[in-house]
Amino acid sequence: MHIFWVPNHADHITQGEIKDGILRAPFEHPGRIDGALGAMKAAGLPRPLEAPEVGIEPILAVHDVGYIGFLNEAWPRWRAEGRTGDIVPLVWPGRGMRHDTRPLTIDGKIGHYCFDAGTPICRDSWDISYASAQCAVAAADRAAAGEHAFAMTRPPGHHAMRAGYGGYCFVNNAAVAAERMIAEGCERVAVLDVDYHHGNGTQSIFYERADVLVVNIHADPIEEYPYYLGHSDEQGDGKGFGANVNLPLAKGSGWGTYRHALDTAISTIRSFEADALVVSFGADTYEDDPLGTFTLGTNHIGMIADAIAGLRLPSAIILEGGYATDALGDNIAAFLTPFA
Amino acid sequence: MHIFWVPNHADHITQGEIKDGILRAPFEHPGRIDGALGAMKAAGLPRPLEAPEVGIEPILAVHDVGYIGFLNEAWPRWRAEGRTGDIVPLVWPGRGMRHDTRPLTIDGKIGHYCFDAGTPICRDSWDISYASAQCAVAAADRAAAGEHAFAMTRPPGHHAMRAGYGGYCFVNNAAVAAERMIAEGCERVAVLDVDYHHGNGTQSIFYERADVLVVNIHADPIEEYPYYLGHSDEQGDGKGFGANVNLPLAKGSGWGTYRHALDTAISTIRSFEADALVVSFGADTYEDDPLGTFTLGTNHIGMIADAIAGLRLPSAIILEGGYATDALGDNIAAFLTPFA
Repeated sequence: MHIFWVPNHADHITQGEIKDGILRAPFEHPGRIDGALGAMKAAGLPRPLEAPEVGIEPILAVHDVGYIGFLNEAWPRWRAEGRTGDIVPLVWPGRGMRHDTRPLTIDGKIGHYCFDAGTPICRDSWDISYASAQCAVAAADRAAAGEHAFAMTRPPGHHAMRAGYGGYCFVNNAAVAAERMIAEGCERVAVLDVDYHHGNGTQSIFYERADVLVVNIHADPIEEYPYYLGHSDEQGDGKGFGANVNLPLAKGSGWGTYRHALDTAISTIRSFEADALVVSFGADTYEDDPLGTFTLGTNHIGMIADAIAGLRLPSAIILEGGYATDALGDNIAAFLTPFA
Repeated sequence: MHIFWVPNHADHITQGEIKDGILRAPFEHPGRIDGALGAMKAAGLPRPLEAPEVGIEPILAVHDVGYIGFLNEAWPRWRAEGRTGDIVPLVWPGRGMRHDTRPLTIDGKIGHYCFDAGTPICRDSWDISYASAQCAVAAADRAAAGEHAFAMTRPPGHHAMRAGYGGYCFVNNAAVAAERMIAEGCERVAVLDVDYHHGNGTQSIFYERADVLVVNIHADPIEEYPYYLGHSDEQGDGKGFGANVNLPLAKGSGWGTYRHALDTAISTIRSFEADALVVSFGADTYEDDPLGTFTLGTNHIGMIADAIAGLRLPSAIILEGGYATDALGDNIAAFLTPFA
């Protein structure tokens, strides 16, 4: 088990986020990572290491180059116009409006790429997202070599689309990892997303791919974020048809319901005969998570990991959500222990 | 000249709007209307009257019934969930996400319909929007009878789509007026939008219609709100092809440039041989408008009206934007005088 992290991840810190109509302190904050290190050490997990920098190519393998250019230039352009706060969207292309225009000004570009009012961009968002993706690459490289690894990424990634950001996510670390495994010689890769929220970005990026299976277990988007993707009738398209599986669960679901979906996910992945696995691990299925409604305990989170480890596939585990900061270290440790 | 208004329009007042990344006092506020009444009276214009209530049908003639149901129920649902602030969106269907889902929960519904972070819904937004639309109907009825009328509507309407809101707009008053004229026997109606911003909603609602010509003169959306509609290549679709004309102008344009576009608009409308005219009048082309960049003076706004009045078409003039509150009354008076 190798663990990779970004030592200066705390440079990505937003002033606040819009939720329930008010501007409030962000749920996705540096304390999530920093507060988890103690419990991870106590559980005997290896010390997190900085990932080697391999550059932008693994990011561009799954993201639009114009989008990545936007992330890179957004903050200086925003500041050059005299804006003092974080970058938040003003307007976006709603139903009946055009997605094919290329606005010249910063507000127009923001709305072109953003799908969420609660994901501000601050000064170092791009740098930290880039560094987090390097962790995902490092974990993928370990998995492609037959080992397990954990990318302790922050900000998370699974909501980031090929050309769009939201849900605290800018670069899709899980997609970067899966594509990297393919580049490193894996013929078939499975992605299992056990975050409370649907991984709309990961699904979308691989939606027409037959060599990457994407399986999600998540709160039903008919009543939960991200609403507009993650429904059970989304099964992939073209040669990717059948290689996308959504297992939405009702809000408030507990272990009995969850385990049933997990069994389905595991058998689906086993049938796919993958060479390696990417796990999008969110701890927001935990009973006290402020953004979740499931009722899983830390013991159940360990049992999810037991089932996944039972696949005996080299696994790159990528951290997604988990906002019950006090319990995050224990939940991470419970999840990683079966792989360690 | 008849003038209609909503005496209790001030009940629609939002706590603030997101602009430039910060929550600030709204530009679209009750003082716009209340501050204009004095200058209008001094100019000898008739006293504004309350419009007769004719019901929901003229609104449903141009808006989706599910959308209107949402506007009607949004506030009580939001409050029932314990939310204390105005209604603002959290997430919306970005590029690659689905527009055909029907979220069950309020945040999902908001993102389904909203395309703008600066258009909060407050307790009375629907009631006042409904009442404003009644003013538009009353003005349309006067125009269908061969007279001129002014609907002093607030909130404005031209950004509202058939099933979407933003740009301070919930119900498209200009579209309601144009459709009402058709219902009242006009065979061909022209809509001329001279607000600083493109009237994306009006364009969209009539985009496939041959009996309603829509002409917009506005700041080029490649660099100005609403960005994702209002480009010169949007010419209508199907039997409506050719009946949509966009005349985008560079930011900072002055009267010389504006007059040229106005000449084109006037001759386009003349060729269409309309029975009656709807004018979406925004005073945010004014040189001191905080949301505009054009350099027109009050005298130029009067000259726009002179040119339009020269068409000698019965006209329903609908108030859209105009955020230089101190000058709005003079600008309205300058615009209405050629019709009075």
